[in-house]
Amino acid sequence: MGREVERAQIAIDRAKAGKHVAMVSSGDPGVYGMAGIVLEVAAKDPNPVPVEVVPGVTAATAASAILGAPLISDFAVISLSDLLTPWEKIECRLEAVSQADVSIVLYNPQSQGRIEPLAKAYEIMLKHINPQTPVGIVRQAGREGQTSTITTLKDMLNYNIDMVTTIVIGNSATKVINGKMVTARGYDLSS
Amino acid sequence: MGREVERAQIAIDRAKAGKHVAMVSSGDPGVYGMAGIVLEVAAKDPNPVPVEVVPGVTAATAASAILGAPLISDFAVISLSDLLTPWEKIECRLEAVSQADVSIVLYNPQSQGRIEPLAKAYEIMLKHINPQTPVGIVRQAGREGQTSTITTLKDMLNYNIDMVTTIVIGNSATKVINGKMVTARGYDLSS
Repeated sequence: MGREVERAQIAIDRAKAGKHVAMVSSGDPGVYGMAGIVLEVAAKDPNPVPVEVVPGVTAATAASAILGAPLISDFAVISLSDLLTPWEKIECRLEAVSQADVSIVLYNPQSQGRIEPLAKAYEIMLKHINPQTPVGIVRQAGREGQTSTITTLKDMLNYNIDMVTTIVIGNSATKVINGKMVTARGYDLSS
Repeated sequence: MGREVERAQIAIDRAKAGKHVAMVSSGDPGVYGMAGIVLEVAAKDPNPVPVEVVPGVTAATAASAILGAPLISDFAVISLSDLLTPWEKIECRLEAVSQADVSIVLYNPQSQGRIEPLAKAYEIMLKHINPQTPVGIVRQAGREGQTSTITTLKDMLNYNIDMVTTIVIGNSATKVINGKMVTARGYDLSS
């Protein structure tokens, strides 16, 4: 904690000194990345340097492509890290989105060796979502050592889940076809 | 409607005939794109051809980068098109995510000249979300003719919104700083 602010400040200071500076952030800088803090630090200055955000591929869509097409319809993205967000707020969000019948993407499912957030999220989701709903678990999405598994909500905790894992929970229209996790949008395929 | 199934079938038929086929879908093919229907059509065959999904930049993250960093924390993505999803289901989802204090991205806000879905979504969101919450409106994100505006939830219907518009509603931590829409993650910037 705090290193992000320091990195942003160094980048802004160099830009103010006349350099062209690129701040690299894995995935999409605008999704749990560095874009926000860089804009916040820049705006503290009475004469702020211009900042351009370049979008990328975030873990949600990277993992989705690996699994099939689980996010083809409405979805929510929730981080289970309570370093910056109070756990009570995360719980409220999980309660709400679990009742919305949208696909759910969990970022940071295990935060620094703590398994409680994921265990609590699992209990909340099981209250509202069919336990047989397909769940995709992707480690190191788009990176060396990438692995992926498709299981069910009920069984998801039986798998290796860590800081570099993205979990995608389907909605009531999600099925596993030909080894891929696909959320049906409702097209008529009968012809 | 139906043209998507037809396009997917043509692509699969050509792949079965031995061709390498690329199906192009704007944005990310896995977010309201062609990935799902191609996988569904492919899986109808007893000996399905392999399909690889290549992720892209979806309108949510493209619009976010243009606006600043409104999606830096948890968010939900909802399409207001009721061509494939019953309107009652879309309403339930809007009710749920409006109470979750997450940023909300609306796709397809105006569907074929119909303004009712957006007007209803506006009423639902106003029941639960502070009317002064920043809202970003981006047309043609990442394309020729791109425009963007930052307003408030209360005033969002005063702007030109059509089929190629993406709307981003902030959460309670979203503010406008130096002309950018930024959701604060909670970093301490006091130093």
